[in-house]
Amino acid sequence: MIQFSINRTLFIQALNATKRAISSKNAIPILSTIKIDVSPSDITLTGSNGQISIENTIPVSNDNAGLLITSPGSILLEANFFINIISSLPDVSLEFKEIEQHQVVLTSGKSEITLKGKDVEQYPRLQEVSTENPLVLKTKLLKSIIAETAFAASLQESRPILTGVHIVLSNHKDFKAVATDSHRMSQRVITLDNTSTDFDVVIPSKSLREFATVFTDDIETVEVFFSSSQILFRSDHISFYTRLLEGNYPDTDRLLMTDFETEVVFNTQSLRHAMERAFLISNATQNGTVKLEIAQHQISAHVNSPEVGKVNEDLDIVSQSGSDLTISFNPTYLIESLKAIKSETVKIHFLSPVRPFTLTPGDDEESFIQLITPVRTN
Amino acid sequence: MIQFSINRTLFIQALNATKRAISSKNAIPILSTIKIDVSPSDITLTGSNGQISIENTIPVSNDNAGLLITSPGSILLEANFFINIISSLPDVSLEFKEIEQHQVVLTSGKSEITLKGKDVEQYPRLQEVSTENPLVLKTKLLKSIIAETAFAASLQESRPILTGVHIVLSNHKDFKAVATDSHRMSQRVITLDNTSTDFDVVIPSKSLREFATVFTDDIETVEVFFSSSQILFRSDHISFYTRLLEGNYPDTDRLLMTDFETEVVFNTQSLRHAMERAFLISNATQNGTVKLEIAQHQISAHVNSPEVGKVNEDLDIVSQSGSDLTISFNPTYLIESLKAIKSETVKIHFLSPVRPFTLTPGDDEESFIQLITPVRTN
Repeated sequence: MIQFSINRTLFIQALNATKRAISSKNAIPILSTIKIDVSPSDITLTGSNGQISIENTIPVSNDNAGLLITSPGSILLEANFFINIISSLPDVSLEFKEIEQHQVVLTSGKSEITLKGKDVEQYPRLQEVSTENPLVLKTKLLKSIIAETAFAASLQESRPILTGVHIVLSNHKDFKAVATDSHRMSQRVITLDNTSTDFDVVIPSKSLREFATVFTDDIETVEVFFSSSQILFRSDHISFYTRLLEGNYPDTDRLLMTDFETEVVFNTQSLRHAMERAFLISNATQNGTVKLEIAQHQISAHVNSPEVGKVNEDLDIVSQSGSDLTISFNPTYLIESLKAIKSETVKIHFLSPVRPFTLTPGDDEESFIQLITPVRTN
Repeated sequence: MIQFSINRTLFIQALNATKRAISSKNAIPILSTIKIDVSPSDITLTGSNGQISIENTIPVSNDNAGLLITSPGSILLEANFFINIISSLPDVSLEFKEIEQHQVVLTSGKSEITLKGKDVEQYPRLQEVSTENPLVLKTKLLKSIIAETAFAASLQESRPILTGVHIVLSNHKDFKAVATDSHRMSQRVITLDNTSTDFDVVIPSKSLREFATVFTDDIETVEVFFSSSQILFRSDHISFYTRLLEGNYPDTDRLLMTDFETEVVFNTQSLRHAMERAFLISNATQNGTVKLEIAQHQISAHVNSPEVGKVNEDLDIVSQSGSDLTISFNPTYLIESLKAIKSETVKIHFLSPVRPFTLTPGDDEESFIQLITPVRTN
């Protein structure tokens, strides 16, 4: 039966990172527990919601853990409840001791708390992913790719495949991530330094956002492994599993146009703030849009929501070229698109009032491109 | 028709303070608007939810306001919507101009936003409170009295009078504030430096908490005025009105006992943390309680919730005297009570396992007293 002592602060951090995979309202009640596996050399915490699973390992070799393992074993404990209890204990360290009938006695300072646990046999087996030939990526790069694409995935389950981000490796080094909800699209491509086996997967955007929270910036690189239905992101102490989406992702390459009639370069922040004002008014009308009028020496934004009011605003630009154009669209898409662009300026290419327009960062021509579909108005 | 220009940051602050009285889901739709009254010398913003009303005045003499009034008038605007729009504008200042049909044109930088307003005649008249013979209190003192009592008021509407704080001035200088939900009671008395007319009112605890948020710590003193149904708290630029509760407040003085059998002095924070741990376990059982065992040289807390587990904890104390005693109670009441006590130690007096016990701050004998009713267990 389990017995160990550990630094409480470090244990709380590991528990909280693992808890991100655990939903207290899961349809499978046993998934509201956290699994604690104690071996002679480490403790592994496991949490899962059926879609994502997180394994967090604390080795005895971690000096900050103050981990002394007297006896190994495995047990399940109600995750939220257990973490609240551990967080409330008074001392810097804590003693964890399993007694009869899956009970656990926690001792810290003068406080002694006994909790009921569950037999570890009740926990579902997480699917295994073979850990050979990893694709190694810088965590920071992977997180920035997620930030640039995941927001453009659909939130609606009517076409489940569109709730994911399509990630493809071709020619062993051409990495592409793309997401679309059929109104807008965001695509990031990079060329990898190291080559790897080609793959083509669709990862739920929600899982990717969760990954970005769990893998903090101090984790330099992440190893990526695939099975037919799962993907595993792994660092030294954290393994993050997520299910893949099944089905064929639509061909997004055909949407990318190369020709354009009008080019305008805006200051990213100033365009975003103008669109946020426009949104406040357009949002008062169902399917409200903003109208962008591009004429020589004068670019302006207009919203008219008969119930609440209207906006008229001259926009500052960096440069413009090509034909005059008037185009209407949902300002939300442009706001979210501009939030994903880190460069000071943004280049927008228009072809016609009824064709999608593209956005690229002012400092980066090809590797990051977004596309927004206009709304036809008369 | 209204026309003025103003510093946007200061205007937003005043709007947000006024908004605290405004509920967007009010049963009376017009109360979701903010009333703007512009006179040649100042702007007054008014918000109300029918229970609380706030008037916020910005005078042209306020140098930070950069207020230039060209033309006076009054108008109603949707509060949340208007504040969001003002917050989104680009420039440090803003021009506010009323045009035909209660429309307002806001100009800031290159942005021009037109909003629909409403005729000020639609706004209900707030009851007047005569502003003679104010009771003048230090804001900080009044806020600390609220923090010490309002939490003990009832949250349930079954006995509406208990949702208020009973505030009484007698002998022109003896000020008493008391709240009880019939399970616990908290009472603060002070002797005023300056004398005033006696009063006896019951103020909704919710309104008092709102007052404490609106009257920031930089407001040194507050004038208090009464009518038969309302109370007005006033500073230089803010008037805060709240309705009084009608009915007779129960006699709480008879609950205060003077004799006791057992006295224990605890460290306030360490007792609070022990009770927070106890609560985590007791809360898993309906009407869960903590049992306090007071014996010579040994004071301990115990919880047993058969479904989830149990707590046993030895408590550190500063001193104890009198008889041994075992008493059970809801730890929530003790936690909330200890949160209201600012002194490092707390003195608790017990009479018997079935009689309420009292808490007083270790550094303050009589002016702040709390009472908690135990739970009978067998």
